[in-house]
Amino acid sequence: MAIKGVLRASMMQVRVLNIEDSVKFYRDILGLEEVCRTEDGRVCFKGYDEFDHHTFTIRLADKPGLDFLAFKVSCPKALDEIEEQTKAFGLDYEVIEANTDQPGYGKRLAVQLPTGHRIDLFAEVEMAENHPDLHNPDIWPGGKQPKGVGATMVDHALLFGPNSAEAVRYMKEVMGLGVAEVARTPDGKADACTWLTGSNRPHDVAVLEFDQPGKIHHLAFKLNSWTEVGRAADILTINNVMIDAGPMRHGITRGYTIYFFDPSGNRCELFAGGYAYYPDMPVRVWDFDQLGKGIFYYDRKLKENYLEVIT
Amino acid sequence: MAIKGVLRASMMQVRVLNIEDSVKFYRDILGLEEVCRTEDGRVCFKGYDEFDHHTFTIRLADKPGLDFLAFKVSCPKALDEIEEQTKAFGLDYEVIEANTDQPGYGKRLAVQLPTGHRIDLFAEVEMAENHPDLHNPDIWPGGKQPKGVGATMVDHALLFGPNSAEAVRYMKEVMGLGVAEVARTPDGKADACTWLTGSNRPHDVAVLEFDQPGKIHHLAFKLNSWTEVGRAADILTINNVMIDAGPMRHGITRGYTIYFFDPSGNRCELFAGGYAYYPDMPVRVWDFDQLGKGIFYYDRKLKENYLEVIT
Amino acid sequence: MAIKGVLRASMMQVRVLNIEDSVKFYRDILGLEEVCRTEDGRVCFKGYDEFDHHTFTIRLADKPGLDFLAFKVSCPKALDEIEEQTKAFGLDYEVIEANTDQPGYGKRLAVQLPTGHRIDLFAEVEMAENHPDLHNPDIWPGGKQPKGVGATMVDHALLFGPNSAEAVRYMKEVMGLGVAEVARTPDGKADACTWLTGSNRPHDVAVLEFDQPGKIHHLAFKLNSWTEVGRAADILTINNVMIDAGPMRHGITRGYTIYFFDPSGNRCELFAGGYAYYPDMPVRVWDFDQLGKGIFYYDRKLKENYLEVIT
Amino acid sequence: MAIKGVLRASMMQVRVLNIEDSVKFYRDILGLEEVCRTEDGRVCFKGYDEFDHHTFTIRLADKPGLDFLAFKVSCPKALDEIEEQTKAFGLDYEVIEANTDQPGYGKRLAVQLPTGHRIDLFAEVEMAENHPDLHNPDIWPGGKQPKGVGATMVDHALLFGPNSAEAVRYMKEVMGLGVAEVARTPDGKADACTWLTGSNRPHDVAVLEFDQPGKIHHLAFKLNSWTEVGRAADILTINNVMIDAGPMRHGITRGYTIYFFDPSGNRCELFAGGYAYYPDMPVRVWDFDQLGKGIFYYDRKLKENYLEVIT
Repeated sequence: MAIKGVLRASMMQVRVLNIEDSVKFYRDILGLEEVCRTEDGRVCFKGYDEFDHHTFTIRLADKPGLDFLAFKVSCPKALDEIEEQTKAFGLDYEVIEANTDQPGYGKRLAVQLPTGHRIDLFAEVEMAENHPDLHNPDIWPGGKQPKGVGATMVDHALLFGPNSAEAVRYMKEVMGLGVAEVARTPDGKADACTWLTGSNRPHDVAVLEFDQPGKIHHLAFKLNSWTEVGRAADILTINNVMIDAGPMRHGITRGYTIYFFDPSGNRCELFAGGYAYYPDMPVRVWDFDQLGKGIFYYDRKLKENYLEVIT
Repeated sequence: MAIKGVLRASMMQVRVLNIEDSVKFYRDILGLEEVCRTEDGRVCFKGYDEFDHHTFTIRLADKPGLDFLAFKVSCPKALDEIEEQTKAFGLDYEVIEANTDQPGYGKRLAVQLPTGHRIDLFAEVEMAENHPDLHNPDIWPGGKQPKGVGATMVDHALLFGPNSAEAVRYMKEVMGLGVAEVARTPDGKADACTWLTGSNRPHDVAVLEFDQPGKIHHLAFKLNSWTEVGRAADILTINNVMIDAGPMRHGITRGYTIYFFDPSGNRCELFAGGYAYYPDMPVRVWDFDQLGKGIFYYDRKLKENYLEVIT
Repeated sequence: MAIKGVLRASMMQVRVLNIEDSVKFYRDILGLEEVCRTEDGRVCFKGYDEFDHHTFTIRLADKPGLDFLAFKVSCPKALDEIEEQTKAFGLDYEVIEANTDQPGYGKRLAVQLPTGHRIDLFAEVEMAENHPDLHNPDIWPGGKQPKGVGATMVDHALLFGPNSAEAVRYMKEVMGLGVAEVARTPDGKADACTWLTGSNRPHDVAVLEFDQPGKIHHLAFKLNSWTEVGRAADILTINNVMIDAGPMRHGITRGYTIYFFDPSGNRCELFAGGYAYYPDMPVRVWDFDQLGKGIFYYDRKLKENYLEVIT
Repeated sequence: MAIKGVLRASMMQVRVLNIEDSVKFYRDILGLEEVCRTEDGRVCFKGYDEFDHHTFTIRLADKPGLDFLAFKVSCPKALDEIEEQTKAFGLDYEVIEANTDQPGYGKRLAVQLPTGHRIDLFAEVEMAENHPDLHNPDIWPGGKQPKGVGATMVDHALLFGPNSAEAVRYMKEVMGLGVAEVARTPDGKADACTWLTGSNRPHDVAVLEFDQPGKIHHLAFKLNSWTEVGRAADILTINNVMIDAGPMRHGITRGYTIYFFDPSGNRCELFAGGYAYYPDMPVRVWDFDQLGKGIFYYDRKLKENYLEVIT
């Protein structure tokens, strides 16, 4: 099989301050489908173009942030190998049995990164009821036009934390991710930020060196085009969602983007385009003083507070 | 590494009836860069978003068609494994030494498919001089706006020939390609057409059962969006290129497309979008009588002669 | 006032074979708002970007077609002048008093064209309840995302009938419309088709010489862009609407277009773009044998039956 | 004629600090055609979709800014009426004879507005050599793909100056422009800014009350779509043009926009879309504290210095 091992960042659980406000936001504005609610009050969603049972869970908490980012693995055997290598690498992990906290999900490894983040890895999950058509398929499941901005699927997250080099080494050596781009530290001697990917996406996850552990800068869903990003800007605006930046383009990944905040203050991104990464591509390197262009390609300077407002 | 083995359909050599007319077409209208000419008069091109030395070669001949479609493999070791497995599978192949017919290319296996097509596989090739930027990269190499329709890279080809089931078996078992979609025969007992992919592209190659060997329906280059497909229609039209179908959408792959003919009668496609394929996706299945919707999603019927005009 | 007299084709009444199927089509798929129903069972609609009470009325009948196309005039005085000139020109007309058949509408002149069509002219109409915002306006009325394909407003109609030169003369001399483009007859001695406009639209109405009176080729609503035309193709397709041609571009007007049929067989168009016409522009002239390119700009040939299937 | 009197803002002369840098900017990046140079060293340009001899002139000066904005009038008789009414209104004006400073132009009235700006009005101008096709027209003149960002034509300018209410009164009463939108002063008792239009454009000119006379905020050229605005952002960026704001949408006009600076510091805009204005539309009114949303629809706040950096 040409793609094997880790396939993609495919699922995440996020903390919110109010469940119903968040449901309105993620379901009615972002257009995710509400799949189910758990006994402990969490709500599970999915994008219209996803096959997995659900891919996005919100949990009531007293501060926002990311509980974990989960990667799907091609098969149970590959997951076993990752477990072996995680042990050998020396990171702590926990095994979460099937169908415990995430309905429909098989066994997960919950790995503790040295940046303070939790990465889950799993190989098995039930197919969602409303999955994309498989027989003489229409472009939208069941012939239904997507709602709101029409987020298609989970795309990636940007993690902020200490010991990022070690986390990146784990992602490369154990998870098998490729490095698409790096941004150097000001002295040029190390990487301040690394963009990693499991297959052709320009990134499934990025990690930035930061003094506080376990923080996220943003979590991202995928759209199909610059035009959909522009339409999302219209829809976010008429719904009074606070937009942080964009619509614009990244120099890094070349993707189109808009950043905005969910009702709990989690920064979200809608991301479209970008090049198709392949492992025969050299790493693209950004000097620290060019990060402005890397992130805000058109403005060519970092927006104030861009690196400070995190959850 | 998450993607390994065969990466993508990355290069092809095509027969044309007139070199200079073809250069004007592929360079000035499709926007490929002319990289070099060989001593025997062939011309080598590449798209602006490709790193490899060249990816598209035209050769003067007395009838149009495809000499071979080449797939890039992740590393020489993977190529060696494919050679072993090709032997075991029982297909004839030839080894083409580095830097013989294709400048800058390493060793290639030229495999003879039972459909009458030649598939080349290679792991090594020099990097093109005008490759995408790697240091503080701009979105276009060297800050230059792409020309013509701005074809970005080789995307796929649709092969017509006999014994397609056996060719598909080789692509799955030896090349490790995944099957994204199939169209059943009228009796529903076999596959009339199969769409296969090495990574997230919805297809790198498709194979249709046909009584004459070694034919191609079309060769495709990649664009970035529906908007670029529309703009391509404008540019093709003002250049009097004969358009065969589109701009439109495929049901199969969900990609946006326009078909047209090069000056020698080779049908070309500009293809954009489509879903991101992952090997955890079930195969999408088309009934034979729904192929019209599969290919001409908006018209929902096959255009006359669509399956007959081939080279 | 820079624009005065006839402003635009702003309203039409169309015959349908089934009211409820038509309501589903025009309201749920095209995205028009159902404004009201009349005592005699007609249903009145409007686009989200229109201020007038309603702009599109359907009436149950035993065959499809257009009852009348109505043009809005800048003021009652201008309407009086048009009445005087219509008398002088010698066309029959009727005065329809305010609030008779069309709720909310002021007095209309119903002019009988020599092509067998009825053109209404009016200056006064009540403002719709759901009109575009006027105070710190959002881009969509009341902050609500348009439904279905999101048709914005009535745009134009293409009339087929005899004595078209005389109808065109009335439109120019009495209605004050400008001629944007003409297509010559095969012998080049007369105009087979004329595109006329009240202001910057490339056409508000077109008239083609035809042997049967009172026919329409299509009625058109406006979209905003090529991208919206493409999205409309997606939405029409998943709703099993029969698409006649497009998405494509016209050479005439340079507009983007898709043609399809309502449930009664009326050909509809969604039209976007096109140049901004001004009366200082020379008339653009098409030879008869170039009409294919004029209408099907990318295919450069008339689609079979294009000029035959009419209502 | 449905549109008569003033047709549109169709021409302007701008001051630049360096002719050759400006030629590179307006010709190679914005894509205007260089039409001719005058004996006194000015350079005349036009957009590919304009019929008039030239529509944009640059003049070497020691500070940037706008010499005049010119409006085309439907016919000499209408120009004579405007001259009469200008006298009656009491504004100073000068008559510039044909073919003096602007090659190919007929007689112009150069009217001195109380805001310190000069508005020219003219009815006659030679047709440009490279005008849009008139016989079986292609979408681009002579079948040539537009260069750079492909600016189509002059669109509008935003003027800053004192006595704006009086300037607006002149534009309404003498020039016959319609008021599409106004922004109120903080106390709500007057208009801080007024957007005026000659026909369906949402604005041909806007006037903002300001203490210094004769200033401009920006001069604008027209693009066709949001997608072209995004592509312009790409092209401006790779050419190191300083982008001031956008790509984004205005609440006012609903148009898509990007602001940037020419090499002399003149703020330019590329503007696309916006609603079609008709004189039967009520004026849209913005409260002063909502101007942020009016101009920066997605951010909903004024960008720092937006109202201060002017020329």
